[in-house]
Amino acid sequence: MHFASDNSGPVHPKVMQAMVAANEGYAMPYGADALMVEVQARIREIFEAPEAAVYLVATGTAANSLALATMCQPFHTVFCSPVAHIHEDECNAPEFYTGGAKLTLVGEGDKMTPEVLEAAIAFEESRGVHGPQRGPVSITNVTERGTVYSAAEVAALAAVAKGYGLPVHLDGARFANALVATGASAAEMTWKAGVDAVSFGGTKNGLMGVEAVILFDPEKAWEFELRRKRGAHLFSKHRYLSAQMLAYLEDGLWLETARAANAAQARLSEGLRAVAGVEFLYAPEANMSFAAWSRTAHRRLHEAGAQYYLWESVLEGQDPDEMLAARMVTDWSARDEDIDRFVELVKG
Amino acid sequence: MHFASDNSGPVHPKVMQAMVAANEGYAMPYGADALMVEVQARIREIFEAPEAAVYLVATGTAANSLALATMCQPFHTVFCSPVAHIHEDECNAPEFYTGGAKLTLVGEGDKMTPEVLEAAIAFEESRGVHGPQRGPVSITNVTERGTVYSAAEVAALAAVAKGYGLPVHLDGARFANALVATGASAAEMTWKAGVDAVSFGGTKNGLMGVEAVILFDPEKAWEFELRRKRGAHLFSKHRYLSAQMLAYLEDGLWLETARAANAAQARLSEGLRAVAGVEFLYAPEANMSFAAWSRTAHRRLHEAGAQYYLWESVLEGQDPDEMLAARMVTDWSARDEDIDRFVELVKG
Amino acid sequence: MHFASDNSGPVHPKVMQAMVAANEGYAMPYGADALMVEVQARIREIFEAPEAAVYLVATGTAANSLALATMCQPFHTVFCSPVAHIHEDECNAPEFYTGGAKLTLVGEGDKMTPEVLEAAIAFEESRGVHGPQRGPVSITNVTERGTVYSAAEVAALAAVAKGYGLPVHLDGARFANALVATGASAAEMTWKAGVDAVSFGGTKNGLMGVEAVILFDPEKAWEFELRRKRGAHLFSKHRYLSAQMLAYLEDGLWLETARAANAAQARLSEGLRAVAGVEFLYAPEANMSFAAWSRTAHRRLHEAGAQYYLWESVLEGQDPDEMLAARMVTDWSARDEDIDRFVELVKG
Amino acid sequence: MHFASDNSGPVHPKVMQAMVAANEGYAMPYGADALMVEVQARIREIFEAPEAAVYLVATGTAANSLALATMCQPFHTVFCSPVAHIHEDECNAPEFYTGGAKLTLVGEGDKMTPEVLEAAIAFEESRGVHGPQRGPVSITNVTERGTVYSAAEVAALAAVAKGYGLPVHLDGARFANALVATGASAAEMTWKAGVDAVSFGGTKNGLMGVEAVILFDPEKAWEFELRRKRGAHLFSKHRYLSAQMLAYLEDGLWLETARAANAAQARLSEGLRAVAGVEFLYAPEANMSFAAWSRTAHRRLHEAGAQYYLWESVLEGQDPDEMLAARMVTDWSARDEDIDRFVELVKG
Repeated sequence: MHFASDNSGPVHPKVMQAMVAANEGYAMPYGADALMVEVQARIREIFEAPEAAVYLVATGTAANSLALATMCQPFHTVFCSPVAHIHEDECNAPEFYTGGAKLTLVGEGDKMTPEVLEAAIAFEESRGVHGPQRGPVSITNVTERGTVYSAAEVAALAAVAKGYGLPVHLDGARFANALVATGASAAEMTWKAGVDAVSFGGTKNGLMGVEAVILFDPEKAWEFELRRKRGAHLFSKHRYLSAQMLAYLEDGLWLETARAANAAQARLSEGLRAVAGVEFLYAPEANMSFAAWSRTAHRRLHEAGAQYYLWESVLEGQDPDEMLAARMVTDWSARDEDIDRFVELVKG
Repeated sequence: MHFASDNSGPVHPKVMQAMVAANEGYAMPYGADALMVEVQARIREIFEAPEAAVYLVATGTAANSLALATMCQPFHTVFCSPVAHIHEDECNAPEFYTGGAKLTLVGEGDKMTPEVLEAAIAFEESRGVHGPQRGPVSITNVTERGTVYSAAEVAALAAVAKGYGLPVHLDGARFANALVATGASAAEMTWKAGVDAVSFGGTKNGLMGVEAVILFDPEKAWEFELRRKRGAHLFSKHRYLSAQMLAYLEDGLWLETARAANAAQARLSEGLRAVAGVEFLYAPEANMSFAAWSRTAHRRLHEAGAQYYLWESVLEGQDPDEMLAARMVTDWSARDEDIDRFVELVKG
Repeated sequence: MHFASDNSGPVHPKVMQAMVAANEGYAMPYGADALMVEVQARIREIFEAPEAAVYLVATGTAANSLALATMCQPFHTVFCSPVAHIHEDECNAPEFYTGGAKLTLVGEGDKMTPEVLEAAIAFEESRGVHGPQRGPVSITNVTERGTVYSAAEVAALAAVAKGYGLPVHLDGARFANALVATGASAAEMTWKAGVDAVSFGGTKNGLMGVEAVILFDPEKAWEFELRRKRGAHLFSKHRYLSAQMLAYLEDGLWLETARAANAAQARLSEGLRAVAGVEFLYAPEANMSFAAWSRTAHRRLHEAGAQYYLWESVLEGQDPDEMLAARMVTDWSARDEDIDRFVELVKG
Repeated sequence: MHFASDNSGPVHPKVMQAMVAANEGYAMPYGADALMVEVQARIREIFEAPEAAVYLVATGTAANSLALATMCQPFHTVFCSPVAHIHEDECNAPEFYTGGAKLTLVGEGDKMTPEVLEAAIAFEESRGVHGPQRGPVSITNVTERGTVYSAAEVAALAAVAKGYGLPVHLDGARFANALVATGASAAEMTWKAGVDAVSFGGTKNGLMGVEAVILFDPEKAWEFELRRKRGAHLFSKHRYLSAQMLAYLEDGLWLETARAANAAQARLSEGLRAVAGVEFLYAPEANMSFAAWSRTAHRRLHEAGAQYYLWESVLEGQDPDEMLAARMVTDWSARDEDIDRFVELVKG
């Protein structure tokens, strides 16, 4: 019963096999390996973007920070949701990589709306040299609350950005989950909607530690390469990153694992929804849900060894009926029996 | 015949097996995995340093930059050799991670001497607030020219640093090669000699991509953790880093691979030394050598597909007798037949 | 009728005379001038802080950024009001000087309250290494909306910070105006209330361009000096900064100019309050007010050459009765006749 | 007898008068003052550069750091002399402002030569993404050793830079002294020779604290403005900077003060040259000289209150005949009687 995060499950066996297979003889280091040529070709094909620059790094924070640093100047501000990973979970890495750019928090929830984004961008207008200058808009899809922007919603946000000449970044740590949730194509969800750069996640969806950064306009490709090296994110034994990503894209494995993760979440959500007293905080649309139930039920789960994210210790406090909210994330390896048992424990 | 770098060979099979073995079920992310507890214990044991803080990152540049950033302030200067990796091969990563510290280049060769180091440190004295302030001394062992500092030589440099109250960093990307070359213990080569922090390399010696940072004084351990996260070098699926490092340290595999790499270099160097007209630029003491021979011989190697680092294209120029210098690095997987064939080709 | 800002008026004649008087012969550069010894002594006396470290810089942004950089690490977040100068008006200077720290915006108005500050600080608790770490609390007094924290209010905020072990910074660009508005002493408004470092403004209150930074705990004095030099804010001909500050503190000139500025604002506010249809957005407590009146009245002022800050052009739009908000700041040199004429023009 | 630095003398009376004259009524802040329009026009005229962007800051370190930050990226290296002010005397300000660029030290003396510069630039060629990338060349004229580059020498260095597509910065803290020493025009010494940006000094030549930054190509003018504000170097009461610079340029005052300073140095050097046992380290070509004489003579000067820069205390050591080197800088206000007395004291 491990629903703490989709980053704590195992690597998909096919990916591991590909790494083992790559472990033969010598290979050119630093991204000049033969496998990387294939990775680039496959990603360009999947995203229908024959000119795109494609790079691999090992963490989502690296992908986001390097992409943003390439898209903005230190005197800019990045527009994002207040629950964005780049704001809440990266220990100031975007500020570090951009040389001190600011993050402007747009709205109050998981999703930005075009109206609120427009207002936030417009607000920076009147201060001339004194205020931060407008920089990229960063959209997270799947959001950090488990909801999903449709391609049309992404396009609407990007249109606002474009109206001000601002570039658009997509934090796609769970991009595959968003795609299978919406049925949109990779291109529709990104450059066709106005996205300029994508952090294309793999680690949360079955890889060991690989994220791709895709720059649809390759103009700043060399700058990205320099920033990656300067950030210490260029791997000498790069072939093992390439091998992971290639296996991920082979025969649609990346969509298969995302479908499995989303299906597991659907099973979990449906189960919980049927339990009296359970309240959902957000509509679970991909592989993550937020719901609240009684402290008593949390204690039962805790004693049974269930793993999930809870904002407060279940052991503190006294009121057994108090509602406490939990976050549950499913990955591709989640098992039905664990899900069902979890639901049973909530039920009591 | 691949002698371009010890970062282009394969991962040791035992390491790969350990990663496969670790790929079972869920594990706590971000360094909280059970394997990491063992890694820490083993490293403390090997270094005879029961209090040391131990962290894993995936690149040598990350290890060096994060260690230095934790050891100095942005208004400091780091003292190092002009051929140090941190100066020549990290695209300003140390400057980035330290927030803009300077590097002061000490001497002109591969090794710093206590006298020249003392002079360089003393030179910064007279400028008060105007000049950079004295920061850490960074020693590279094995040096970037394939020579090795003895434990006594490290101690002599560290004594100069300590005389000024400065901390000492060791870039040990090839630390195991230095140990087996000198016969010193890990402790003798580091904290017993006055070293405060070590970048303990694994990637060049049989791992896929893992380096440990060891802080003998754990006072700044938490700061290191924050800097690692902020630098985007904290891995969610950290267990695979732990698994590599643990296999590396198991039954002395790390020393075994280093011995193999050094022995391969010795075979190569001895072979080349017997060839008339070959001149060595540095005494090869570990797994790297620098030697020069005729353009004609380089061309023969080139046509036979030999891989090694050459500062000039063999195809340019006209003088067949011109001497061109090469760098040859051997890793644990170097084969005797390749070495012998390489020597034969130089011989012509 | 110039009420655009208290930074657009002239230098007080006594200050100018002091600069002229200082312009004789040679003086030690870089803060080693004899006048600076007196400045330090006077500020320590006024703030009843015999151990305080005192430094001069030429801009308020430099004072704030350098103070904050000395008080926090790049992985911290600074807690401040969303209308704080450090957030809105310094083009990311605090982010630059701190090496990429974040600013957490507390509440929604001009003043932070202890409750909202407590909640904001508490919020950062649960993310371990992932979120920004808690850094200094920065209070602006006079606030950017012309309201004033009492010494008790400052103490209440500082108590929250201290409860979490966090240092407290005071942006006192208009510190003198706050003092004369409240009647508190410099010590009561700062270290007695729990403030650790003050940006003590002079430029907006009659100086040409001097702000003092006061560190009540001198432990980081040398670090501050290095950061000031590294930020290019150490003046070679420092005596002219010292001369200004000394004249400012002589015979209470700084309080006299602040009283004049506040009195001018009181006259202006009283005048406007008596005009039908004028609405105040904030209670004017020092030398700055925000009020709204009709577009027609704004047009009259505009045509008469009145200078003040308006968020929208008076020439746009069509509705003559539409209410538009203005910011009016008075400095020590404001003249009664200008104030009265301004009020008459609003009246129409 | 004050020859410690040209930054410790007084402000020229005409400049002080201009500041007093500017102290009347209100003026637009932040560089929008009417005087700045005149400053820009005058500088464009003097430099024969009608398109140039012109900005004022208050310190030489700010001028240099902001100019360099606008001309390079954090992954670049700046080529300069090992005695350049940007390397030795700015406490890592260039590294700070550029976001961590490196400085590559060219040659070993006061002046760079085209050959050595070419070699230094060429050296960075072979490392691809691993080494720092080539950035601006920064030339200091007058050099930090009191020698002067002719316009032809500047052009030869710039030609090397241009051959690699690199921009050229001129640290002209003593630009006027170089001009009057060579007889070249401002244009010949800068853009006609290939210089792209100039730090045009005033502070060492009779101003209180003003340097202009001149960007001959205004393409990055807005970026410069943002970097200036972000660096906290935009003055609200900017008119006093403008007033200084305008007085400086009026009727050639800037050349007059430079001529006076150079003439004083010539008198001093000629006097010292006639003293037996005095040895010059560099040919004094502007307003600064370096010469050595006996410890005994230094002691005489010291007791008579002479001020100059000495690398070692005259009170230490025992050998009265030991030669100690001194730096002597003359400013516009140096008096003949002081110079002559100084020479007499060396003579003994």
